[in-house]
Amino acid sequence: MRVLGVDPGLTRCGLGVVDGGKGRAVSCVAVDVVRTPVDASLATRLLRVSEAVEEWLDRYRPEAVAVERVFSQHNVRTVMGTAQAGGVVALSAARRGLPVVFHTPSEVKAAVTGSGRADKAQVTGMVTRLLGLAEAPSPADAADALALAICHLWREPMRARLAEAEARAAELAKAHKARLAAAAKKAKGAAR
Amino acid sequence: MRVLGVDPGLTRCGLGVVDGGKGRAVSCVAVDVVRTPVDASLATRLLRVSEAVEEWLDRYRPEAVAVERVFSQHNVRTVMGTAQAGGVVALSAARRGLPVVFHTPSEVKAAVTGSGRADKAQVTGMVTRLLGLAEAPSPADAADALALAICHLWREPMRARLAEAEARAAELAKAHKARLAAAAKKAKGAAR
Repeated sequence: MRVLGVDPGLTRCGLGVVDGGKGRAVSCVAVDVVRTPVDASLATRLLRVSEAVEEWLDRYRPEAVAVERVFSQHNVRTVMGTAQAGGVVALSAARRGLPVVFHTPSEVKAAVTGSGRADKAQVTGMVTRLLGLAEAPSPADAADALALAICHLWREPMRARLAEAEARAAELAKAHKARLAAAAKKAKGAAR
Repeated sequence: MRVLGVDPGLTRCGLGVVDGGKGRAVSCVAVDVVRTPVDASLATRLLRVSEAVEEWLDRYRPEAVAVERVFSQHNVRTVMGTAQAGGVVALSAARRGLPVVFHTPSEVKAAVTGSGRADKAQVTGMVTRLLGLAEAPSPADAADALALAICHLWREPMRARLAEAEARAAELAKAHKARLAAAAKKAKGAAR
């Protein structure tokens, strides 16, 4: 399974493609940071991010896209731009019918380092080690994009299993309800 | 000039097309609200908003797009979805080379009613009257989209004139600086 991880942003947007193998084996396919000019209009910056993501989707053909979920209340202006960039990324993936999953920063940190409160240096260190990279990806946005992809690869099977179990439980509950209704109807018929 | 106004949102996205005539004359070309299912994934909802906007851009061929700028600190979750929907709208416009301008709610209210603190009913009432509509656009998101388009039509000439004046002032300042430098050089030459 191949995943494109995206740490969305207008000033710097991290992109990382990771292949998952057996168990927890992961390997880095590509990593980069897209920058858009600070003095360009918001629409132009979003277009640039969108074009870069489209290009990566064409080139690396990932099977899923993992995007960082923005939550922070700090600096509303920056957060809005980040959310908009994330929306544009999700749109590109949805257009191609690719699944898009949003992971919170603490989910990503927990998946990669074992702690939801790990700092940037710890995340970068673990990403570098897990992917067997010769040097640490830089800037942090690049490492974060790779961490997102790894998080998705490791969490997704569990999430899918859970969704399957829930669907089966709902199916069983439905069948049980139908049996109950049939029994009630039969009882009514016998009483008449 | 024809403007598409967009009150972005995932649950309800208001779309309104308004033609501007001489002076402050405005007429309504189309107005509607796009809804996306609450239980669909974020990516699917963004895709639906994007498709609707693309369809409107094809059908009505506006020359500019006016989008509401999201600021609110209330309900971060909703604001994020709204910001993402706005980003997707801006992207569609930018792809076609159309100018996209974000207006704040108070700018829109002030343009349409004369007060930046007008309530929803006042905005809807003024939009209905200005466009000579037989009945008030409903829901409020539809009226807001029309108000955005009107705000853009009325503010844009002023904004463009201001930008032109600023460019001319910068040009004059540059020419003046060049003349000063030339004079200084000449004076140095004479002193030698």
